[in-house]
Amino acid sequence: MYGDRVRNPALLDRIVCADDAAMLIRDGMTVGMSGFTRAGEAKAVPMALAARARQSPLSITLITGASLGNDLDKTLAEAHVLARRLPFQSDPALRKAINAGEVMFVDQHLSETVELLRTRQLGPIDVAVIEAVAITEQGGIVPTTSVGNSATFSILAEKVIIEINLSQSDMLEGLHDIYIPTHRPTRMPIPVVAPESRVGLPFIPIDPDKIAAIVITEKLDSSSTILPPDDETRAIAGHLSEFLEHEVKAGRLTNSLQPLQAGIGTIANAVLHGLIETPFHNLKMYSEVLQDSTFDLFDAGKLDFASGSSITLSAEKYRSVMPDFARYKSRLILRPQEISNHPEVVRRLGIICINTALEFDLYGNVNSTHVAGTQMMNGIGGSGDFARNGYLSIFVTKATAKDGRISSVVPMASHVDHNEHDVDILVTEFGLADLRGLAPRERAPLIIANCAHPDYRDELADYFRRAVARGGHTPHVLEEALSWHVRLKETGSMR
Amino acid sequence: MYGDRVRNPALLDRIVCADDAAMLIRDGMTVGMSGFTRAGEAKAVPMALAARARQSPLSITLITGASLGNDLDKTLAEAHVLARRLPFQSDPALRKAINAGEVMFVDQHLSETVELLRTRQLGPIDVAVIEAVAITEQGGIVPTTSVGNSATFSILAEKVIIEINLSQSDMLEGLHDIYIPTHRPTRMPIPVVAPESRVGLPFIPIDPDKIAAIVITEKLDSSSTILPPDDETRAIAGHLSEFLEHEVKAGRLTNSLQPLQAGIGTIANAVLHGLIETPFHNLKMYSEVLQDSTFDLFDAGKLDFASGSSITLSAEKYRSVMPDFARYKSRLILRPQEISNHPEVVRRLGIICINTALEFDLYGNVNSTHVAGTQMMNGIGGSGDFARNGYLSIFVTKATAKDGRISSVVPMASHVDHNEHDVDILVTEFGLADLRGLAPRERAPLIIANCAHPDYRDELADYFRRAVARGGHTPHVLEEALSWHVRLKETGSMR
Repeated sequence: MYGDRVRNPALLDRIVCADDAAMLIRDGMTVGMSGFTRAGEAKAVPMALAARARQSPLSITLITGASLGNDLDKTLAEAHVLARRLPFQSDPALRKAINAGEVMFVDQHLSETVELLRTRQLGPIDVAVIEAVAITEQGGIVPTTSVGNSATFSILAEKVIIEINLSQSDMLEGLHDIYIPTHRPTRMPIPVVAPESRVGLPFIPIDPDKIAAIVITEKLDSSSTILPPDDETRAIAGHLSEFLEHEVKAGRLTNSLQPLQAGIGTIANAVLHGLIETPFHNLKMYSEVLQDSTFDLFDAGKLDFASGSSITLSAEKYRSVMPDFARYKSRLILRPQEISNHPEVVRRLGIICINTALEFDLYGNVNSTHVAGTQMMNGIGGSGDFARNGYLSIFVTKATAKDGRISSVVPMASHVDHNEHDVDILVTEFGLADLRGLAPRERAPLIIANCAHPDYRDELADYFRRAVARGGHTPHVLEEALSWHVRLKETGSMR
Repeated sequence: MYGDRVRNPALLDRIVCADDAAMLIRDGMTVGMSGFTRAGEAKAVPMALAARARQSPLSITLITGASLGNDLDKTLAEAHVLARRLPFQSDPALRKAINAGEVMFVDQHLSETVELLRTRQLGPIDVAVIEAVAITEQGGIVPTTSVGNSATFSILAEKVIIEINLSQSDMLEGLHDIYIPTHRPTRMPIPVVAPESRVGLPFIPIDPDKIAAIVITEKLDSSSTILPPDDETRAIAGHLSEFLEHEVKAGRLTNSLQPLQAGIGTIANAVLHGLIETPFHNLKMYSEVLQDSTFDLFDAGKLDFASGSSITLSAEKYRSVMPDFARYKSRLILRPQEISNHPEVVRRLGIICINTALEFDLYGNVNSTHVAGTQMMNGIGGSGDFARNGYLSIFVTKATAKDGRISSVVPMASHVDHNEHDVDILVTEFGLADLRGLAPRERAPLIIANCAHPDYRDELADYFRRAVARGGHTPHVLEEALSWHVRLKETGSMR
């Protein structure tokens, strides 16, 4: 039994129930778990850990790839298991605990966590819990729908717990490309020179003796929570496609563009989906998460290849893609998030990076993380890995939120994740601002006219005019710079 | 005459006076000039251009490597030659014109400008003006004390003017390593795997037919303006050395550390100089500008190799180093700033990055550029290339400025060049805050206790306490967040 999934016979007697496996995790430990954008997370052991913690309190530092599915972050947060959490999350209950100061959240660039672990600036990892399709004869771990940080967690951890998920298709085997950069300062170049470069192994190579427990599970990944395109996201996609067509006409891009990255979420997904209606062809993706739009583009014959660190699909798309996975597999690679997001590769390939902003200011500084400067939403994710190093750094958002009560265009960003130096293009449903080669004073009128909601344009223009009267390279009326956020807090609206 | 410096005989008849060469530059053109941190800038042609503009107005877009010496930015700004200036400057007169909105300044990561030019997102370059030691038989340009962006300017420009500077030692020939990354998306890895990697040519290869004029000059580079170490910079150096020794004891670093980068200026120079008094040895630098401290470390037997994009020395150090240059030359390389600052190489080598902050906030967000959020000082320079991608990102500053009237530690940074995600270590003369692995709420008490001036600690702690009472991952009292800067503007002091 399970011999096709646990192919090293010596490991078969390590199969235990989740409760027993979870006993390897003790109070105060640092635990690395698989999981990236709700895909491929370990499912049974964290649930068992939360159940145990409800009886007998314990808390850990939990490091993952990115966000977890199956309400795991909620369950763990509510059971007070999480003393410290990194590098990303997107769960409302955990978010609440973070903003209340109950969970210490360390918001990191997704490519960086494993560099810190490897150099012992974080860690050590006591236990890794990794979801797998299979364990090979040599003890190699075959991940499921995400790679995330699983490879380095497994290599560095003292003990490894494997969750063999029987619901994850064995077709996933062969999809992964596990490459671990060598030690610094004697590291060699990362040999990825194209989205389709295969440079590593199809499994995570570890000493099988470290595999301390194996748990058999059957639970599916959670479906993605993206919403279908609406008028506004379609408008954003339209503005961006028009801009890219203009770049092709100007001879700066070809109709195959450059490799594409798109952040997680509804807007980025809609923007990619919008490329179906364009003259572009033979596209490639070098991204983090592959969402529904990746497969829509494959099906439309627009996309030649997609590299990512995870596959996160809607329930409907999952039902159409997975049974037919053989049709896509040769055009897909899943990599460790360190490689999917690596500054070296992002710069080399010249990626067009499309990420979502929470708000941006008159000068192009982008807030991706903090509502009104203080309340953490999800985290910076990979947007910083891509925005600084890519060919074109594009940020998209709807011009307003909360029925128009919040303007996404503000006098001064209340928190800065991407500064003026890293932001080339801003897009809302009203239009696009091309900031390349412009000084701050030139950026503001363009952003107001092209991106802000009409209801807020006059007040933004008035602020800018009064700021300019005071002078400065980046003009501000400092005592009013955050007044829109203060007003929001006091009245529930920026109006 | 000049045959040893202009070795292609066909070019000798292109030698003209600076006024004639400057006539190649016409109103509205985009001009690329050599020069990086006051080293190796073209000297005669820009002066001739300014003289002409005083008679007959003209203005250009001027792109350089970084800051220019010999008061060139001042002279050009005062003659109203500069409509647009990028990617860095450090001149008081130009700064004034930028802050008055007279010159459109585009503040860029120093590794990025040539990527934008090469992909025609900026430019085209009409004329390049490059200072050289010599022109080879094949028309190759041998730069002087900096490489900066000179190679790409020369390759892309329609016409090239060469200033052969007879005062620049012919010993400089062979020092440079000119490597130009290939076109994207088919770019190959940059083969630099160590500070001492030589991967290119010792000259800039261009078609000699593009050399439209040659001007003979004799003016020296300006001396650096760094001040000698004082009690405060010595204290900063001491705290940092102690921290690095602690990292060695913890087994995270060896006594050879990792390759070092240090920003331009007095504090970074003093910090490097301070390494003379430590047990570290066999150090290497992979930096932008090589200042006095590089040669002090060579002389102390501490440094094995230094790679940079320019050499900028004090008058005294220049007098001791240059006559004896043969003693250093085999341990030095000057590279294009794209390569000295390249994210790919910075990440690969695992650089320890030491840069200067103007101010930072309770959560570790760093302002490198804007006084009170609005007035441009110099520009971000290479700090963003290094801070995001290095092994350790360290920012140093004195805890106060203007006789204590300005605190460098503020509730909220008034402009963010390096955000919490990119800042590992903060150091002032009072101490060091190690922010690695800490959430914002954990960072603030450490920064207040270790880095702030005692006169400001109570008020910072009070702000933090009241902010925490309001909640949030990054707590703030939004209506007070910039009040210290407002107070400074109104009263001349943050007290």
